[in-house]
Amino acid sequence: MCELLGMSANVPTDIVFSFTGLMQRGGKTGPHKDGWGLAFYEGRGLRLFQDPVASCESEVARMVQHYLIKSEVVIGHIRQANVGKVSLVNTHPFVRELWGRNWCFAHNGQLADFSPAPGFYRPVGETDSEAAFCDLLNRIRADFPEPVEVNDLLPIIVEACQGYRRCGVFNCLLSNGEWLFSFCSTKLVEITRRAPFGHAQLRDAELTVDFQTETTPKDIVTVLATEPLTQNETWTTHGAGEWTLWRLGECVARGRGDEPAC
Amino acid sequence: MCELLGMSANVPTDIVFSFTGLMQRGGKTGPHKDGWGLAFYEGRGLRLFQDPVASCESEVARMVQHYLIKSEVVIGHIRQANVGKVSLVNTHPFVRELWGRNWCFAHNGQLADFSPAPGFYRPVGETDSEAAFCDLLNRIRADFPEPVEVNDLLPIIVEACQGYRRCGVFNCLLSNGEWLFSFCSTKLVEITRRAPFGHAQLRDAELTVDFQTETTPKDIVTVLATEPLTQNETWTTHGAGEWTLWRLGECVARGRGDEPAC
Repeated sequence: MCELLGMSANVPTDIVFSFTGLMQRGGKTGPHKDGWGLAFYEGRGLRLFQDPVASCESEVARMVQHYLIKSEVVIGHIRQANVGKVSLVNTHPFVRELWGRNWCFAHNGQLADFSPAPGFYRPVGETDSEAAFCDLLNRIRADFPEPVEVNDLLPIIVEACQGYRRCGVFNCLLSNGEWLFSFCSTKLVEITRRAPFGHAQLRDAELTVDFQTETTPKDIVTVLATEPLTQNETWTTHGAGEWTLWRLGECVARGRGDEPAC
Repeated sequence: MCELLGMSANVPTDIVFSFTGLMQRGGKTGPHKDGWGLAFYEGRGLRLFQDPVASCESEVARMVQHYLIKSEVVIGHIRQANVGKVSLVNTHPFVRELWGRNWCFAHNGQLADFSPAPGFYRPVGETDSEAAFCDLLNRIRADFPEPVEVNDLLPIIVEACQGYRRCGVFNCLLSNGEWLFSFCSTKLVEITRRAPFGHAQLRDAELTVDFQTETTPKDIVTVLATEPLTQNETWTTHGAGEWTLWRLGECVARGRGDEPAC
C-alpha cells in the first residue's frame, strides 16, 4: 500500500511541515520505501519531484525540504510497491495534459484484474494506478472533447471511482491545478487550518510548527492524508465511498456513494 | 533566443560537465536568464527539473549539479524569453505522453504568426515552442493512431520541422527515450566522444574533465548544443535544414532538407 498527501490553500503555501512527517514513513516510521513523489502547481505549471528510493534517504526529498516551494495545490505520494516494479516510471503522482492543463493523480490501494479498454491516454509504466488514471481521463475526454467546468465532470469522476473501488482498494487524489478532488475507498483524513492558528506536532518526527507565525489571518489551508500527520490536532476521517472537492482551501462539494451533496 | 543541450549515450552517463558549462550562459556568460530545464530519461521514466529563474542562480540547478543523475538520453534548455512570459509553464523542455511513452521536446528560435489547428494535444503555456510540439504530436497521431518505428515517423517529423522553419527559426531536440532527434534551422553543433578519451575544457567556466578517468573504452557519448561547450575539442556544425537521429550515442540517420540519407 501507499500513503497520499494533498493540499489545497487560498495562498501559495509550502508543504514542508507535512512532507517532513510523510517522508519519515518512507522507510523510517513506515514501510513505504519504494519511491515517493510530490507535485506542486504554480499557476498552470507543475513541478514534479520524484525518486524511486525511500523518501527518508532521498537527496531530491532533502532538496524539496529545504527549498520552500509555495503552491496552492500539492499532491504527494510515498509508495510501497505491489503492482509494478520499483522504478521511476511506476512512481506517483502521474501527470497528463488534458484540455491544455496539467492533470495530476496519485492512488493508494490495489485493483485486481484491472484491464481497461485502451484509449488515447496510455500508461507508461506497469501500475494499476496509472492505468486507472488513463482510463479516467479517457472517459472524461470521450464524454467531453472540449473543456467543461468541474461540476459537470463530477458525476463521471465519482462514477469512475466507484467502479475502480469495486476492483479493489481505491483512495485517490486528482487535480488540474484549480481544484483538488479526493475519493476514499478505505482510508483518508482531512484537516482545514484557519485563524486562529495554533501549534502542530508531527506524529512521525520531532518537529513542531507554530502556524500563527507562518500565516496571515486570512489563510485557509486544507491537508488530506492517508492517516493523520499530527498528534495534537483533530483530523476528520472520510467514510467508504466519500468524495470531496476543494478549491482555495475550502470544501466546495462533498458526497458519498451515489449521493452527491454540497 | 535560447540554448539547447542534448545527450545520447550507450551507457547511463551524467551530464553534469556539459550542464555546468550551459548553466553559466543562463545569466552569467550568456543572457538566457529566463528559466532552464533538464529532462533525464531513466528507461521509460522521465525526470524533469525546471526553474523559471536564471540557471546560474537556481537552487534546483545546483542540486542537479551535485546529484549525479545518469541517463542515456537528456534534453536541456536555457531560456531567454521572447514569446510567453517568464513562468514555469513556459519553461522548456515540454513533455507529453504518446503511445505510452514520454515524449520530450525543447526549441531554440521563434515562430511568427504560428497558430496551428487545435488538436488533442494542447499547449498549457503561451510559447510558440509548446504549440509547435503539440502540433507535431497531433500530426503524428493523426497519421499513426498506433505505435510505429521511428523510421516510419521520420518523414512526418522532418516535414513538420521544415514547415515550422518557414515560420521563423526552428532548432529543436525531440526524444521518446529510445532515440534523440535534432533539427537545425540556424544553429546546432554536435560532438561524439569515444575511446581514446581525452581532456575537455569548458568555454564558460573554469572546469576541465578527464573523460578517460570517468569512462570505459566501450562508452560512446554524443552531445548536441546550440554552440560548442568546450574550447579544446572539435564540434561539428549542422547546416540549415539538417536533421539527425541518435540512438545509444551513435548517429543512426541523418539528412538535410528533403533529402534523407544515412
